[in-house]
Amino acid sequence: MRILVVNVNTTAAVTEAVAVQARAVAAPGTEIVGLTPRFGAESVEGNVESHLAAVGVLDAVLHHPGPYDAVVQAGFGEHGREALQEAVDVPVVDITEAAATTALFLGRRYAVVTSLDRTVPLIEDRLLLAGLDRRCAGVRASGLGVLELERDPVRATEAVATQAAAAVRDDHAEVIVLGCGGMSGLAEAVTRRTGVPVVDGVPAAVTTAEALVRLGLSTSRSRTFAPARTKNMSGWPFP
Amino acid sequence: MRILVVNVNTTAAVTEAVAVQARAVAAPGTEIVGLTPRFGAESVEGNVESHLAAVGVLDAVLHHPGPYDAVVQAGFGEHGREALQEAVDVPVVDITEAAATTALFLGRRYAVVTSLDRTVPLIEDRLLLAGLDRRCAGVRASGLGVLELERDPVRATEAVATQAAAAVRDDHAEVIVLGCGGMSGLAEAVTRRTGVPVVDGVPAAVTTAEALVRLGLSTSRSRTFAPARTKNMSGWPFP
Amino acid sequence: MRILVVNVNTTAAVTEAVAVQARAVAAPGTEIVGLTPRFGAESVEGNVESHLAAVGVLDAVLHHPGPYDAVVQAGFGEHGREALQEAVDVPVVDITEAAATTALFLGRRYAVVTSLDRTVPLIEDRLLLAGLDRRCAGVRASGLGVLELERDPVRATEAVATQAAAAVRDDHAEVIVLGCGGMSGLAEAVTRRTGVPVVDGVPAAVTTAEALVRLGLSTSRSRTFAPARTKNMSGWPFP
Amino acid sequence: MRILVVNVNTTAAVTEAVAVQARAVAAPGTEIVGLTPRFGAESVEGNVESHLAAVGVLDAVLHHPGPYDAVVQAGFGEHGREALQEAVDVPVVDITEAAATTALFLGRRYAVVTSLDRTVPLIEDRLLLAGLDRRCAGVRASGLGVLELERDPVRATEAVATQAAAAVRDDHAEVIVLGCGGMSGLAEAVTRRTGVPVVDGVPAAVTTAEALVRLGLSTSRSRTFAPARTKNMSGWPFP
Amino acid sequence: MRILVVNVNTTAAVTEAVAVQARAVAAPGTEIVGLTPRFGAESVEGNVESHLAAVGVLDAVLHHPGPYDAVVQAGFGEHGREALQEAVDVPVVDITEAAATTALFLGRRYAVVTSLDRTVPLIEDRLLLAGLDRRCAGVRASGLGVLELERDPVRATEAVATQAAAAVRDDHAEVIVLGCGGMSGLAEAVTRRTGVPVVDGVPAAVTTAEALVRLGLSTSRSRTFAPARTKNMSGWPFP
Amino acid sequence: MRILVVNVNTTAAVTEAVAVQARAVAAPGTEIVGLTPRFGAESVEGNVESHLAAVGVLDAVLHHPGPYDAVVQAGFGEHGREALQEAVDVPVVDITEAAATTALFLGRRYAVVTSLDRTVPLIEDRLLLAGLDRRCAGVRASGLGVLELERDPVRATEAVATQAAAAVRDDHAEVIVLGCGGMSGLAEAVTRRTGVPVVDGVPAAVTTAEALVRLGLSTSRSRTFAPARTKNMSGWPFP
Repeated sequence: MRILVVNVNTTAAVTEAVAVQARAVAAPGTEIVGLTPRFGAESVEGNVESHLAAVGVLDAVLHHPGPYDAVVQAGFGEHGREALQEAVDVPVVDITEAAATTALFLGRRYAVVTSLDRTVPLIEDRLLLAGLDRRCAGVRASGLGVLELERDPVRATEAVATQAAAAVRDDHAEVIVLGCGGMSGLAEAVTRRTGVPVVDGVPAAVTTAEALVRLGLSTSRSRTFAPARTKNMSGWPFP
Repeated sequence: MRILVVNVNTTAAVTEAVAVQARAVAAPGTEIVGLTPRFGAESVEGNVESHLAAVGVLDAVLHHPGPYDAVVQAGFGEHGREALQEAVDVPVVDITEAAATTALFLGRRYAVVTSLDRTVPLIEDRLLLAGLDRRCAGVRASGLGVLELERDPVRATEAVATQAAAAVRDDHAEVIVLGCGGMSGLAEAVTRRTGVPVVDGVPAAVTTAEALVRLGLSTSRSRTFAPARTKNMSGWPFP
Repeated sequence: MRILVVNVNTTAAVTEAVAVQARAVAAPGTEIVGLTPRFGAESVEGNVESHLAAVGVLDAVLHHPGPYDAVVQAGFGEHGREALQEAVDVPVVDITEAAATTALFLGRRYAVVTSLDRTVPLIEDRLLLAGLDRRCAGVRASGLGVLELERDPVRATEAVATQAAAAVRDDHAEVIVLGCGGMSGLAEAVTRRTGVPVVDGVPAAVTTAEALVRLGLSTSRSRTFAPARTKNMSGWPFP
Repeated sequence: MRILVVNVNTTAAVTEAVAVQARAVAAPGTEIVGLTPRFGAESVEGNVESHLAAVGVLDAVLHHPGPYDAVVQAGFGEHGREALQEAVDVPVVDITEAAATTALFLGRRYAVVTSLDRTVPLIEDRLLLAGLDRRCAGVRASGLGVLELERDPVRATEAVATQAAAAVRDDHAEVIVLGCGGMSGLAEAVTRRTGVPVVDGVPAAVTTAEALVRLGLSTSRSRTFAPARTKNMSGWPFP
Repeated sequence: MRILVVNVNTTAAVTEAVAVQARAVAAPGTEIVGLTPRFGAESVEGNVESHLAAVGVLDAVLHHPGPYDAVVQAGFGEHGREALQEAVDVPVVDITEAAATTALFLGRRYAVVTSLDRTVPLIEDRLLLAGLDRRCAGVRASGLGVLELERDPVRATEAVATQAAAAVRDDHAEVIVLGCGGMSGLAEAVTRRTGVPVVDGVPAAVTTAEALVRLGLSTSRSRTFAPARTKNMSGWPFP
Repeated sequence: MRILVVNVNTTAAVTEAVAVQARAVAAPGTEIVGLTPRFGAESVEGNVESHLAAVGVLDAVLHHPGPYDAVVQAGFGEHGREALQEAVDVPVVDITEAAATTALFLGRRYAVVTSLDRTVPLIEDRLLLAGLDRRCAGVRASGLGVLELERDPVRATEAVATQAAAAVRDDHAEVIVLGCGGMSGLAEAVTRRTGVPVVDGVPAAVTTAEALVRLGLSTSRSRTFAPARTKNMSGWPFP
């Protein structure tokens, strides 16, 4: 089975780190292909960047020659999963949703710890739309940007673990979800610090995608994700 | 005061029709400028098209030399309002939200009648995110596409009025919101058929935008819509 | 166009202050008529006073000879808007709801700062009934009564700004709504202190009422606000 | 123990019928005193009438010399319970809320059958404010006015039982609440027709009030229902 | 009338204390019969113990020879009320739900103070299922186990009153519900400390059960609580 | 990896059918062990049976000598998952929740089709507690009992497919969840009839359990599912 894991930012090193993380959990026989958008921001931390990423991810997938069995969108709280579901026939898994549903099996309430405060609303909106908000105890910001988290694991661990511990203590979270692609590799340290399970989005999404493929299930084409109607498009797909 | 009214599809005739509708309600001294995206679909009726429109609208506004006092996004249920709010300093009004808030003042529950069934989920999602869903009695589809509605007002009136009447009778709607830019001009006929107030999004958005400007209010920059951070962008803004 | 702006308390000075505030934002050609109830409390800060105000406002409007084009109920969180909508044919705008819907266009979440803690539940109830509660980050009390706010602008500014700043910092409010008629004139100072947009109910209601009139829309008579049935009334209307 | 049972309309015969119904269920030693408002409508079926009733009930209670141990407001879905709670020290029980909480103990979901369709929104609003809406399967109208229900028990039974049966069959109601004072005496017949428990508001409210008195509990004075502040009132209490 | 009051734990002293409390509020002519499960935990403070209690209570009631007029399940936040409702024809009252509905008549929001933090989720779940969560300001733990509360009233009062006061001050609770059978007898002291009404579950349940019996109402058999189908059971009822 | 798949009823043939279904989807190297409760009902279709099953499943798991890596509770909408999570250290997956979360990845709304109408409330309650209700378009009953579904696949297919088609057409479901263990093997036929993805609980739970084990995650022990306190138990564990 081949899974496309699509980064939402344009930083190739992040794509590579995400792919490494995906491969570490993938079943034998699963091939992970990392994709990077051709345009957009080096890190996605806001509304313009997220909407741009939605189209950038779509563009990247549509330009992949295939075949592939599933697509993982590796941005936490970003836009665009619905467009992918409409555009391709295989299962599409957003890491936000995969992490949240995984967390549901591990404790009564989960909290998300993300990068900057400005990305909190994006994550809350995505969880609301996904109907996964009621058991979310809150979304907290570590105060570090995506690339800072990526570049300084020691500082990242400290900042994330501090917020995670506060979520457990003050918000009654029982599970922590790492709410940023740049946090890959922090799960173990945060578990040690908080004593609760820590869910990382990319591995959760890979196992979810593998499960859907093994179950022989893909996106319903009956209504919301029916194939697009044939019509005149201007300048799309991007050349 | 100058208001940019941005179409979400690439059909210039629709932009013109929307601008005419906007001018009809605009106060003396308000200039309406219609904008058409440089890329995207001739009509927006799905997830890919809507995400593409979000970036197309943003692109159109960012390429406008200014100055302007407010921006109206003239697509019902489309993505992208949040990105516009982050990108510009002036008030941004989405016609979906303007129509819904207007309806709140007119009756206890409102229903939306839109184009195709496949666009219903997009509208429901937007109303959910906007916190305007609780008094929505439902979103119904007329079964006609955006351009069909535009081109055949007689058939459009019949299809829309039928669903509007059903919403009043079966769903206890007391107000009807026309949920598609292509329905401009149908309000009077639908009111006659149903006996309830009918809200059209573009006029509602123009009066809302004018009110915000007159009140001297614009988007809060404190958190969700704080200006984007300075960072490396690839291929953006589009040339 | 003539708009009746009806005070909910019996203090004529408050009626006059509200009318001045309304005139400051009204469009050229809009006449503002301030009305004061013939009975009730000098300030409305509780359940008895609010229910009494509902009937007092109704009484005041029914005794006005007309004509008028819209009615603004200038009490924050008070009862009675529904009765007015049933009693008159023109649009009715409650300042609570006008302020809240205006706030929706300015930021993701808004907070209300009101007078005394005992009025908080009244405001929460009104927002709940109006379906405008989900994006409300909270209602905070300044601790000053309605007439204290009116009489001592310096102390009022300090108390309101303190709570507004706390709402922004602790509750993630991005917009502040001034939740009391007695706060007119504080918006600018509170904006300066908090850096976020501040919405005042009376101006928001006037522009909303004007918009409804210009759009040619008024209350749906189909169900909730159908005209009252003809029946025997005892002692009503009050002589 | 003495319980004031206050009618919301001005029809003395309804007050008497309600008092009879109350006495039938009251414990030995409980005295039922029926009160009729001095002003208002002969039947309450809309917003103006309901707001007027809120003040009429308050006026009636405040003019009662006392002593009394509890107050029952015998109007289904009317305004004013909060004002009574603020005005008196003894427990106040609204029949809408007493019927609904009683129904919660009898089945998973209950439906209300009321008089006219125009009163449905009032009942829905009251249940929403009371936090009793989630297990309500719906509010249905019999199509008969309050006084018609009162005067023609055969026709009333037929109309109410028809809607009750539909609520059980189509809305999964397991309990029926009679949503109108004029329906007293129909419970047995509707139970026979539907096979499910039928709750009548006045008896439910009397047993609830008795229970509160026996438990030695009354309204909390800590915040929402704190005694009114001392202030200048105009024309109130009504002479 | 005879009411079975069934303890959820296997400690006979708790059963006796509960029965004493029940008798103190029961009407003349009401006989209270205390029952203790034959198996289970000496105190119920977790999921295994609560599920076991559900069956233990059922077992105890099914082995009672009868007759009886109502059953009270005297465990706060425990499982099993639905099974009892299916198994017997008389009204079943859970003390959690009786306390919460009683609290609704006394103030706008109530808080629960319970034993250990680990029982909070059980109570929250029960209130959610009962549709009684919206007016719950929160569930707080005293930090003392069920039997500690029972054995040391002075320490119990201190711990419970401290949390109750915090709920009033910080969570805007206006009524306190004692969320543990082991707290019987604390109501008066906690009222003195907090100044707000305090509801104890067992007395509230007894008056509720009496009211249902007097109203001639019992569980609807139409759907959720229809009698069990006849089928092969293994090892049940327990010998 | 070894997964215990525990039936909720006492019919060994159902346990075997469930195990076969589990093995069909299990990854190479996963051993499936089917367990049958020692007591309870031959099929679980109501509240008493479900509460009994909760303890029966717990009893079966606690008597298994181990080791095992995960537990799947193979009853749709039954009680007891929380008790299992508290009792064992490995991941516990309820098929209701696994099916629902799987469905979330496949379409915007899912519907459940179950056995008898009387089991619908149990399923709705479980989905509510799990926070998975908002995207559920409804739970429909096929009208066939658990064992009828098991024994007559042709009739079962017809009954289930009819309700599934109605859910897609009338309730806007885009995915169908088979809400009964006795429906194993129907997925393919129902997919053919409805054209939408059909999720079967047991396979979904097996892949979910495998994923959790591979991710190295298990139940949080921090609060809700903390190990039980040491205390005196009477007659438990059952001998």
